[in-house]
Amino acid sequence: MTEDDLIARYFAPLAGSDGLGLRDDAARMACEAGQDLIVTCDALVAGVHFFPEDPAEAIAAKALRVNLSDLAAKGATPRGFVLSLALDDRKADWLDAFAAGLKADIAAYACPLLGGDTVRTPGPLTLSITAFGLAPHGRMLPRTGAQAGDLVYVSGTIGDAALGLLARQGSIPPRDHLLERYLRPQPRNALAPALRAHARAAMDVSDGLAGDLAKMMRLEGLSAEIDVDAIPLSPDARAAIGTDEALLKCALSGGDDYEILACVPPAAAEEFERAAAEAGVSVTRIGRVVTEQGAPAFRKKGGRLLAFRRSSYSHF
Amino acid sequence: MTEDDLIARYFAPLAGSDGLGLRDDAARMACEAGQDLIVTCDALVAGVHFFPEDPAEAIAAKALRVNLSDLAAKGATPRGFVLSLALDDRKADWLDAFAAGLKADIAAYACPLLGGDTVRTPGPLTLSITAFGLAPHGRMLPRTGAQAGDLVYVSGTIGDAALGLLARQGSIPPRDHLLERYLRPQPRNALAPALRAHARAAMDVSDGLAGDLAKMMRLEGLSAEIDVDAIPLSPDARAAIGTDEALLKCALSGGDDYEILACVPPAAAEEFERAAAEAGVSVTRIGRVVTEQGAPAFRKKGGRLLAFRRSSYSHF
Repeated sequence: MTEDDLIARYFAPLAGSDGLGLRDDAARMACEAGQDLIVTCDALVAGVHFFPEDPAEAIAAKALRVNLSDLAAKGATPRGFVLSLALDDRKADWLDAFAAGLKADIAAYACPLLGGDTVRTPGPLTLSITAFGLAPHGRMLPRTGAQAGDLVYVSGTIGDAALGLLARQGSIPPRDHLLERYLRPQPRNALAPALRAHARAAMDVSDGLAGDLAKMMRLEGLSAEIDVDAIPLSPDARAAIGTDEALLKCALSGGDDYEILACVPPAAAEEFERAAAEAGVSVTRIGRVVTEQGAPAFRKKGGRLLAFRRSSYSHF
Repeated sequence: MTEDDLIARYFAPLAGSDGLGLRDDAARMACEAGQDLIVTCDALVAGVHFFPEDPAEAIAAKALRVNLSDLAAKGATPRGFVLSLALDDRKADWLDAFAAGLKADIAAYACPLLGGDTVRTPGPLTLSITAFGLAPHGRMLPRTGAQAGDLVYVSGTIGDAALGLLARQGSIPPRDHLLERYLRPQPRNALAPALRAHARAAMDVSDGLAGDLAKMMRLEGLSAEIDVDAIPLSPDARAAIGTDEALLKCALSGGDDYEILACVPPAAAEEFERAAAEAGVSVTRIGRVVTEQGAPAFRKKGGRLLAFRRSSYSHF
């Protein structure tokens, strides 16, 4: 099968109209006056960011969703993506399932394929997606800009994926919810309008809550006080941590949450919470931004500080 | 060195203002009314698309230039790019040289870095660039649309890079110009306005002239008559072919030319040639589009047909 055959068979059917049927060297998007185009790029390497034997449709979903999660955090509406695929020796069956996975997410998130490149690699399967979103001009939600006094929110639940990875590695007993959360991130694109309207700064939690929050605070020379007991945990995460309290740190510093971390001015908190509820995304207030220096303080009941040896996961 | 350190040290200094200093999860481009955003994506794998030991700055240049070449063929003005870099165990020295190579091309082509992702890979160095260009709304030059009677043009000279690869592999004697043309493509972005104004269809020649032309003709169910003796060859290519006539086919079907292949209506030919000359890019009329089926006919003096066993190079 030539590259052209492969594109025609697997990817052209997924192309949005801007993708020109993937028959050209480029995609074409009409610019819309008053809009900013938001561009994000994330790469995944088999054996580094996912297991080579993960289901093909889950690999497709993860590659797209980690990018959709960035668009959500920026308050942007998905507009399309290009896929760069360095294929190892995977065959037609795998490509069928991979394309089916992409197709489902393209529909679910209204984010068509616009183009890309397919090459062979003697190394591990490597996927790189550049995703595009739209936001009203000047309204992209930045990662910078948090202010002292802002309330710190997270969406969904924290730590499921990090515990799911441990379960997948056999380090802790398997629990379906945790395994699933590691395998298939749930980007919070439904939250984008609420974020854009009410939050001051946001990012997605991809490398662990503790480290990502520290990074966000460092950008402004600020810190945060976090109420560990307020951090939302799923029943399965809570159960796992109940059997081994050391897993709490793993949950708060492990990666792959793909939840939203947002700083919201107190005056906007009520409206933010209402808008999130209307969007069907749970958000939880976990602390506030303070004018300190240094890593955010994660405090348990009674004031005891949680000390992280490593506040975030690094694939690098 | 963490990923953040690496970005801050090597890549943030290359970021255009839309790249937000690479401190955010995304880049932001203001949409300009009346413009289309043209998007192209090409990936390169060490050992497949370049030699792992090629100079770092040449690898950087090639990764960006193969994308710039696509923008040129679409008649688009470069606007920026995102870089996805899967690094093997290359160290600071290599990254210094790589960043210097990118920096030089960013300046030369006015195409700033907007963002990207950097990951580690246990496999070969893999680079994927998504590049953005602008064209007036509806004016992107397509690969489709050639019509019978159109004149077929190519820019620059053909076959240098394919012969340069043979020289690099030790199959033919080394000649500096050929080696250099393989190592550092020269995208024809200066030709973009002339193409947009006068050509009907265009693509860049990346997989060999014979195969790429066949692909372009197939899209319209047409063919082409090509005068082999009119195809522009560099003195070094001509000298190499002079010692072994079989190398002519290699020159016309090998890859990595990164020249422009364009179909121009006869009525626009004179103006196209003048505009190209003003842009400082040589263009040569090599044949015309005909209402046949099948592969384009490459005829030598006296009418003898050149038969290609393989009309294009495939990395795939």
